Amino acid sequence: MSWENNIRRVVPYVAGEQPQKQNVIKLNTNECPYPPAPEVEGVLRGFDCDTLRKYPDPDVQELREALAKRHGLDCGQVFVGVGSDDVLAMSFLTFFNSEKPVLFPDITYSFYDVWADLYKIPYECPPLDENFRIRKEDYMKENGGIVLANPNAPTGVCEAPSFFEEILRANSDSVVIVDEAYIDFGGESCVPLIERYENLLVVQTFSKSRSMAGMRIGYAMGSKKLIRFLNDVKFSFNSYTMNAVTIKAGVASVENEDYFKRITAKITATREYTKKRLAALDFVFPDSKTNFIFAAHQRVPAQELFDALRANEIYVRHWNKPRIADYLRISIGTDEEMETVLDFLEKYLKGKQKG
Amino acid sequence: MSWENNIRRVVPYVAGEQPQKQNVIKLNTNECPYPPAPEVEGVLRGFDCDTLRKYPDPDVQELREALAKRHGLDCGQVFVGVGSDDVLAMSFLTFFNSEKPVLFPDITYSFYDVWADLYKIPYECPPLDENFRIRKEDYMKENGGIVLANPNAPTGVCEAPSFFEEILRANSDSVVIVDEAYIDFGGESCVPLIERYENLLVVQTFSKSRSMAGMRIGYAMGSKKLIRFLNDVKFSFNSYTMNAVTIKAGVASVENEDYFKRITAKITATREYTKKRLAALDFVFPDSKTNFIFAAHQRVPAQELFDALRANEIYVRHWNKPRIADYLRISIGTDEEMETVLDFLEKYLKGKQKG
Repeated sequence: MSWENNIRRVVPYVAGEQPQKQNVIKLNTNECPYPPAPEVEGVLRGFDCDTLRKYPDPDVQELREALAKRHGLDCGQVFVGVGSDDVLAMSFLTFFNSEKPVLFPDITYSFYDVWADLYKIPYECPPLDENFRIRKEDYMKENGGIVLANPNAPTGVCEAPSFFEEILRANSDSVVIVDEAYIDFGGESCVPLIERYENLLVVQTFSKSRSMAGMRIGYAMGSKKLIRFLNDVKFSFNSYTMNAVTIKAGVASVENEDYFKRITAKITATREYTKKRLAALDFVFPDSKTNFIFAAHQRVPAQELFDALRANEIYVRHWNKPRIADYLRISIGTDEEMETVLDFLEKYLKGKQKG
Repeated sequence: MSWENNIRRVVPYVAGEQPQKQNVIKLNTNECPYPPAPEVEGVLRGFDCDTLRKYPDPDVQELREALAKRHGLDCGQVFVGVGSDDVLAMSFLTFFNSEKPVLFPDITYSFYDVWADLYKIPYECPPLDENFRIRKEDYMKENGGIVLANPNAPTGVCEAPSFFEEILRANSDSVVIVDEAYIDFGGESCVPLIERYENLLVVQTFSKSRSMAGMRIGYAMGSKKLIRFLNDVKFSFNSYTMNAVTIKAGVASVENEDYFKRITAKITATREYTKKRLAALDFVFPDSKTNFIFAAHQRVPAQELFDALRANEIYVRHWNKPRIADYLRISIGTDEEMETVLDFLEKYLKGKQKG
């Protein structure tokens, strides 16, 4: 015997590389290329640091109210956490608590199986179809919960709320989580379904469309009952997850809707331009409604392109996994960054043709 | 059947009240009465908010290095989380993973049983002796892990490292956590034992002695092996728990050792003065090495004093629980605050004698 026998042994999630060098083009973790709303800086500059000696508001009331107002919900329908990963980790712990398998696609956010393993939750992964679409009939069998990213990652494929409504109608016995980390780039949110399905939890984040990955804010929206259960577990884990500065910075971001609309529109426009250029270079990709494109070249292997890009200080994401090994996930950067990447790819591919 | 059947149902921890009114004397959550090191404000004022669009360093390298240096450890021996509650919650999940009961005293930090319940970890609570001391022989039986607060809360009683060494010697088969949230007010830390016991985890926090409860920083120190297991679980939960601003603010605090020494000495002096005054007013209390005093009056019930204080905008903590219902936990505030509280108690108790 040894103390090591009692350890929970897990294989952790591996996030995209965070190169410490400056002057790289970093398109590997779907960060926003633009700064947060200017009012966020105002919060840091004006923050009364003497108040840091006190615990923050454990109920995160101010930020929950701002989010509720923005989404046309009641404050009791909003839960806030340390990024959507924290919100999802708490949700798995709270809602997926049966012997039946939780369902999520074979190709999706690769944290879902890590959380399931962490909590020893059984799960099944119905395969996406050949176009990377979710087959909804796969989610109409007995289960201990469902989690679906919409748009899905790393594919970028987005479904309409009516699609999820069909799944919800068939699953009144389990909690259905729709992870909308990328919904603000042209998708249609499932939030309006909340009033009709008390077992629906919609998760969003400040890390992508609000340029605040560094601040760690995510949130969940659902029926008051669902949020109450989630809160009970959160308050059994850590009373104060959101620090005082983060709460105020989050409010500042939510209150500047104009800025939010402007930068999401800009990223969406850059994405549409990038799609055209990639198609012209013989890339194929599912139609993306996110701030990234999941693209495979018709002749050149993804690993080769990944290495060539990386050698030129351009970071994208590649998974050496079944079904997706041919693809690169390229985050949408500024127009200038995308121009550099596309020009590089154009030259590289032309060079190959000659060779 | 309903989705509610699959929910994890828990009774959450209840933190001390956070009155929103200004001008109250708040001595109920052991916060520090002084502001954080001035360099913390410098971090907020100078922070480059454009960088918030990027994820923070998931390894929290800079802060772990600062802490390692301060405690004479290697960076790989330090783990950082969102307050010591986050660190302890992760530690319970990581290390207390057997069928045997985890051991902690009947009177101690009331989050321990909440975490055990959350993860369905069996536990036993050997009673403290009549002087609120831990009986070390109670921790020399088979167990799935041990967690001991030193100094203990809410009693304030502190034991020497040699006391924990005896427990460690008898428990090479389980992880022993020493929760040192209050160690900086006169106790002697178990950190030097880390090099000899690879199953010892020592947890500390920025919330008390570093005046940063509002910033949410806690940390654990232990053998590299122990920290690696803890990291694996953390990276299976949330890759990025510490936001970019918090990391830099934490470093700024750690680097100002002079300020830290000055305010902890000041609080310790105020506590010693408070002890004398309380004793003169016929309070009894175990000798505290923390930033609070756990005091019972020899004639007047704690609930009555609690209510009288509260009616006068003075908040202290009271638990209506077996063995401790006679006690008030009074955090140490500024000299002025303590003077006000002590004067109030003096008058109140004199009024009763006459009455």
